[in-house]
Amino acid sequence: MQNLCLELTHSVYPHDQIYGDYCPIQGYINCPPEDTFQYLADTKKLAEWTYSLRNPMLHGEPDLYRFTDQIGGTTPCFCRTVANREALTVDYHCAWDQPDHLWMIYLMRVVPAQLVLDKPGSVVLWVNCHHPFYTRNPYPETAVPGRNFWVGDAWPMFYAGHTVELQNLKLILEHRHAHGLPVLGTPAVAASEVTA
Amino acid sequence: MQNLCLELTHSVYPHDQIYGDYCPIQGYINCPPEDTFQYLADTKKLAEWTYSLRNPMLHGEPDLYRFTDQIGGTTPCFCRTVANREALTVDYHCAWDQPDHLWMIYLMRVVPAQLVLDKPGSVVLWVNCHHPFYTRNPYPETAVPGRNFWVGDAWPMFYAGHTVELQNLKLILEHRHAHGLPVLGTPAVAASEVTA
Repeated sequence: MQNLCLELTHSVYPHDQIYGDYCPIQGYINCPPEDTFQYLADTKKLAEWTYSLRNPMLHGEPDLYRFTDQIGGTTPCFCRTVANREALTVDYHCAWDQPDHLWMIYLMRVVPAQLVLDKPGSVVLWVNCHHPFYTRNPYPETAVPGRNFWVGDAWPMFYAGHTVELQNLKLILEHRHAHGLPVLGTPAVAASEVTA
Repeated sequence: MQNLCLELTHSVYPHDQIYGDYCPIQGYINCPPEDTFQYLADTKKLAEWTYSLRNPMLHGEPDLYRFTDQIGGTTPCFCRTVANREALTVDYHCAWDQPDHLWMIYLMRVVPAQLVLDKPGSVVLWVNCHHPFYTRNPYPETAVPGRNFWVGDAWPMFYAGHTVELQNLKLILEHRHAHGLPVLGTPAVAASEVTA
């Protein structure tokens, strides 16, 4: 066992080994886990803390939203959120261009930091898996005409991009928690999001 | 955003940056997610796929087991499993020496590979968080007399050790699934585990 472990343990690891097949990131947020869960489970809030999802519009039931993903110009990104309040999991089932096969899945989980870090707040776990459709667009006929970029082209930047977004999430939730503000934002802010 | 991402993205990452505060690993297992979940949710099976947990004995209700953790010689390791069948999460709440504060938490989650990798089987996500008690034993008076090793001393090897154990899990489950064997093992195997 010692030999096996020494063979696996290195001073550095290449990007592709760590972020090639899966993209796991994690972070601590000084905000109660129930609030963090409530915020993450609100699909519209993706327009607030992600880099490129904007203009959430309810597209269908149950809880299927259409965003514009500004990485793809005017590309629509569809998203259905599947949350489990007991396990504190929040999964965003998404896809560019079409809502019928939501294959881009953002797996999130909120863990009470009291349990795992001996302090109040939340640990957020976030994993994406390298679905083969990141390599080839399975529904090219649904793409915006003339677009010469595919979401999967950005896979090598997912670690960095998601890290920036997790930092956004942390700043928003820690600000609201520290100031006793509603975790979902004030009605005015919420309204401006919808019409932005 | 591009500048932020380029600053975060590197050709290699040091061990402590990737596995210092959290230890996330993941893997694909060619076994149906329900079977993988059922196997993981059976606490006694830790004696089968982990490196050092042996001799499971029911210690208390609900579902609190006492193992011997052979990394610590004759050290008892207590474990209560908290599983959620809907979210497919399986958390092992453990501690060396005493069963009253189960602070070593192994956070596992089974994800249907059909959803995230477009093929049958399971993706297993596994994260440990660097609880401060890994750095200092909070209950030294409960330690086996004369033991000069603490579980947290091994934290830098968790990535490697858990990777070997995840490989065990994969081999066991893929063998049983491929041969149509009961995922929990045959009764004879199960009995020999308990009395081993």
